[in-house]
Amino acid sequence: MSLICTGTIGIDTVHTPHGSRERVLGGSCTYFAAAASFYGPVRIVAAAGGDLPPEFLGTLRGFRGVDTTGLEVRKASKTFAWGGRYHDNMNSRDTLFTELGVLEEAPPPIPAAYADSEFVFLANTHPGVQLGMLEALPRRRLTVADTMDLWINIARADLDRLLSRVDGLVLNYDEAELLTGRANTVAAARHILTLGPKFVVVKKGEHGCLLAHREGLAALPAYPSENVVDPTGAGDTFAGGMMGSLAAAMGDVSLPSLRRALAHGTVVASFNIESFSLERLARLTRPELDARYAEYVGMVRV
Amino acid sequence: MSLICTGTIGIDTVHTPHGSRERVLGGSCTYFAAAASFYGPVRIVAAAGGDLPPEFLGTLRGFRGVDTTGLEVRKASKTFAWGGRYHDNMNSRDTLFTELGVLEEAPPPIPAAYADSEFVFLANTHPGVQLGMLEALPRRRLTVADTMDLWINIARADLDRLLSRVDGLVLNYDEAELLTGRANTVAAARHILTLGPKFVVVKKGEHGCLLAHREGLAALPAYPSENVVDPTGAGDTFAGGMMGSLAAAMGDVSLPSLRRALAHGTVVASFNIESFSLERLARLTRPELDARYAEYVGMVRV
Repeated sequence: MSLICTGTIGIDTVHTPHGSRERVLGGSCTYFAAAASFYGPVRIVAAAGGDLPPEFLGTLRGFRGVDTTGLEVRKASKTFAWGGRYHDNMNSRDTLFTELGVLEEAPPPIPAAYADSEFVFLANTHPGVQLGMLEALPRRRLTVADTMDLWINIARADLDRLLSRVDGLVLNYDEAELLTGRANTVAAARHILTLGPKFVVVKKGEHGCLLAHREGLAALPAYPSENVVDPTGAGDTFAGGMMGSLAAAMGDVSLPSLRRALAHGTVVASFNIESFSLERLARLTRPELDARYAEYVGMVRV
Repeated sequence: MSLICTGTIGIDTVHTPHGSRERVLGGSCTYFAAAASFYGPVRIVAAAGGDLPPEFLGTLRGFRGVDTTGLEVRKASKTFAWGGRYHDNMNSRDTLFTELGVLEEAPPPIPAAYADSEFVFLANTHPGVQLGMLEALPRRRLTVADTMDLWINIARADLDRLLSRVDGLVLNYDEAELLTGRANTVAAARHILTLGPKFVVVKKGEHGCLLAHREGLAALPAYPSENVVDPTGAGDTFAGGMMGSLAAAMGDVSLPSLRRALAHGTVVASFNIESFSLERLARLTRPELDARYAEYVGMVRV
């Protein structure tokens, strides 16, 4: 099994009702890889600037199985930086600033050593870039993409091409509605199936997720958490747990396999939100993860 | 098994993106009883005015097992009437008018024939009235109450007394937060357990429900529905399916029994929202209900 993720490394500044953190490690690729690493090895393709603190690399490499060969550090460039403030209920946030940095430059190349990657996650970026990554991964067996409102609005033709070439799509419920013009989440998810993917995962944050699949629907609640410190990275760690589980299942995207994958994503994300940045995942142990997975499965069983 | 529900009979005027209905049958007791009737007999205690159209009684009695002995029709009074308009996403609504009518008068008495009722649901009304109903039901084995923001704000002392005397509480997520001052739904639900009830069911509409129980938590998604015509009565039919299931289980409120009860509530509510008023439940068959229950259990299984 060879799981690869293309996405961002970020320097995040986050304010939540529980406190603030200035310039901590973030980014879609970072969160994804940390979460996926609990299920097996994971390769990352991302770019950072010369301002990336060396200890961030140490944190990332501290997750067993994260292969950073594809992390390109560009000395003369700036790392993508993002700042946000969460509202009291943690369900919404305001972006305070976005400094694109290396994201405005050419995307990082996929190392030759990664060319045999079979399980591919294309974290949120311009769909044209995501398509280019696909081209460079001829051995892919399972490809899942994330996207966002920006690309739905300004790069729809590229996004449509991407959708015709991926096995799965992950997106937020409001983005599913934007993409399809349907206000009902179930109708929106089913509509996306007609655009190409075999399955669509609609993320609803604290309300869980909905899976539309050619064989049927599934719905899972979030892990009921009292201890939400920082929701940043919830979606990316969810995707990391999901893809890690699917890669461990050799790309089995049957409905039962996907339900288990969504449950794994849900549970690993529930740990991530218990602290800022990657603090909680960095000290998460496999027994803790297994225990909460078993607890979660018991909670949702009828 | 002898299930009883105290609540309202209403004349509803409803506007949704799918259309409008003027002066149709509604009310918490009505929706609850119709839903519960699929699981066994159900007795109602409610008052209506002389303006209640005779065919509304026929509709209610058309549900096998609904006992209307406790429905008091007061010729000189007006039936409770409510008008509302749902927003495009069906998740929120504006109340257009409320005419309390008989709700401003003395509550209806509990008929002597109902005094042996064991399973009691106190639909939303002033907690002082709910306490009075309790007193009149000395044989009760399981009592569950609903409440709302109004009583939390203006009748807190009565509500606290009620909470110390019921087995379970059902309420919306925003009401759970209002009752406890905790913005996190899980924390709010757990807090309510310290006020008396053995279990608390937090309703989240299209996002499902959360159960806090002395033995642990459970979470269930809503049935993923594409066909939402009118959400009115969703909470009451959910409660009706839940209590019907618990009464059929002879009041077993263990965590597994409650999880099944919540699933039954979820499924019967999913039919109710497919049409205005009681139109869908009136033509719902047991095989349809069983088939969707099996489908739902499959959707949420990990």
